[in-house]
Amino acid sequence: MYQHGGDIYHYQKILDFSTNVNLMGTPIGVIEALEKGARLCHQYPDTNCTQLRMAISEKENIPMPQIICGNGAADLIYALVLAVQPQKALLPVPSFFEYEQALNVVKCHINYFQTKKEKGFLLQEDFLEQITGDVELIFLCNPNNPTGHLIEAGLLDKIIEKCWQHNSLLVVDECFMDFVKKEECYSVKKKWKKYKNIFILKAFTKLYTMPGVRLGYGICQNEDLIKKMKEVCQPWSVSLLAQMAGVAALKETNYVRESMEVLNQERQYLFHEFRKLNLAVIGSKANYLFFSAEPDLYEKCLEKGILIRDCSNYRGLEKGYYRIAVKNHLENIEFIKVLKEVQGNGKINYDTGNDV
Amino acid sequence: MYQHGGDIYHYQKILDFSTNVNLMGTPIGVIEALEKGARLCHQYPDTNCTQLRMAISEKENIPMPQIICGNGAADLIYALVLAVQPQKALLPVPSFFEYEQALNVVKCHINYFQTKKEKGFLLQEDFLEQITGDVELIFLCNPNNPTGHLIEAGLLDKIIEKCWQHNSLLVVDECFMDFVKKEECYSVKKKWKKYKNIFILKAFTKLYTMPGVRLGYGICQNEDLIKKMKEVCQPWSVSLLAQMAGVAALKETNYVRESMEVLNQERQYLFHEFRKLNLAVIGSKANYLFFSAEPDLYEKCLEKGILIRDCSNYRGLEKGYYRIAVKNHLENIEFIKVLKEVQGNGKINYDTGNDV
Repeated sequence: MYQHGGDIYHYQKILDFSTNVNLMGTPIGVIEALEKGARLCHQYPDTNCTQLRMAISEKENIPMPQIICGNGAADLIYALVLAVQPQKALLPVPSFFEYEQALNVVKCHINYFQTKKEKGFLLQEDFLEQITGDVELIFLCNPNNPTGHLIEAGLLDKIIEKCWQHNSLLVVDECFMDFVKKEECYSVKKKWKKYKNIFILKAFTKLYTMPGVRLGYGICQNEDLIKKMKEVCQPWSVSLLAQMAGVAALKETNYVRESMEVLNQERQYLFHEFRKLNLAVIGSKANYLFFSAEPDLYEKCLEKGILIRDCSNYRGLEKGYYRIAVKNHLENIEFIKVLKEVQGNGKINYDTGNDV
Repeated sequence: MYQHGGDIYHYQKILDFSTNVNLMGTPIGVIEALEKGARLCHQYPDTNCTQLRMAISEKENIPMPQIICGNGAADLIYALVLAVQPQKALLPVPSFFEYEQALNVVKCHINYFQTKKEKGFLLQEDFLEQITGDVELIFLCNPNNPTGHLIEAGLLDKIIEKCWQHNSLLVVDECFMDFVKKEECYSVKKKWKKYKNIFILKAFTKLYTMPGVRLGYGICQNEDLIKKMKEVCQPWSVSLLAQMAGVAALKETNYVRESMEVLNQERQYLFHEFRKLNLAVIGSKANYLFFSAEPDLYEKCLEKGILIRDCSNYRGLEKGYYRIAVKNHLENIEFIKVLKEVQGNGKINYDTGNDV
């Protein structure tokens, strides 16, 4: 069985709601940069990603030495784990699978913190007790994939403080933060300078709909850590094409603004349609909805030509949990139509007050 | 200091002899595939690289399950080392730096086998004594980068046998084998089926002049090893663009044939010009020449607008060793012109009988 979203290579002519990229599609500037890059691929990529890091530095207002680029954010997760080689790590679950996979490479002991089903898998204050002196590394996905939850700002502050006290490295994966309303209230970016033990992960994949290219970056005040990460990787991991695409993407400010407007409308639309169907959305802070429904919804949707993300293979989840991307209006209408057909008698599952 | 070839990002308007890719440039079919890919990069790459592995399987006449693709051959070097986690490895030096770098990630003890200066750094029979029971992994680069030597076929057979006896994994990096005359006499590909402990590394980068894309592959009969390698990597390491470029590249049979013809001519040309200058080429079996000259040749060439590879940062080499790519005729003429200008009184350094 395919373990991830986006298995369009298996299913032909399918409407793919299983991957959660920006509904606006790849910006034209990025496509043009890649076309230009096609004619320059006789050159090795710049191992320092100088132009790209310069552009990121300007966008994020963070100095270049504190920025590292990777072959997708996933590449950086592995590099980070290899650089740190932690003995013990803490992972709230359900969350993105690659943290666990990367930690297994270095045979790290993992404490899994199961978020509570009855709280809609939202991280709660009792997580703080898990941050003990022997925990060297913590991965937090914020907003979380697949649950679509944001960590409450006050709780996040407490987590940061406790990690600081215990000298634990806190990796905050903000790959979906760009899709959050009032991002500035939730992102740890404002804290990167004060806390040397925070590592922020970001991707181009989601915001600029370029998963086929592979590009992500990390921000960390600790230059030694960045140096170590470079040592455990090949020097040419970020392709020339990806570097050019990244520089072009960062110029797409109108695209980003428009995306957010459309995303907000469409998220609202789906949210209300789910309500009408008596199906409660569990989490929806990013560009996807996480919900629970009957156990065979995946198969039923597939029969109707729609691919959704069956989340039962996430650690900490069971059959009956799903994630769908917020797509464009016509596609969302089609999805709701299918959902109405297949979902005879939906029922409200959880209401965490987590509306859009 | 930049550690690799191809530092064109530092030097503008320079004639780059420091990277050794196919002198014919990127085939048009590959460029077109990348341009097409630019418009498809809203899709995630196929994590199984199905189309690409199918095409490689057909070209190499090796079943798909025995083929693994990576984000450049260097990516596979790291994956291999992480999958095997050897305690002890054996590396002849000088050779490609990334073997050592990857082994350091898992804190592997490395036995370096220094090939003899007086033998032009060619691997000799005494290497066999180094293959002892505790050596878990051996990297052989064939033809070797940077020396341009091929391992004599009889010696290679003995190495394979000894590795087999001792259950050592023998990684043969054949990234430059495509440029060798009578490749079939030297490649271990014919042995992949008999020996489960051989891993063959191949790149698209060199033969198809596409270093900016990042694509390599590995061949190994041991499917468990391939499975383990996949477990220590992110699933999306090979971009959609790279997969499309690879499939297109494998169709470029005319390009490959023509390349070899031109390469043979130009290699011969450079070789004879070196002789006329009283400068002996040490190794030249691939698409580059390895030679020794005065200690400041790098700087002198740079002043004249030519970037060559100063090999003094290779383990086992010292100041005064250089590698240059075989490029097209006009570029080669230009290089020889500059060499004549800067090399007042060259002298024969070594003659290993290693002519082209």
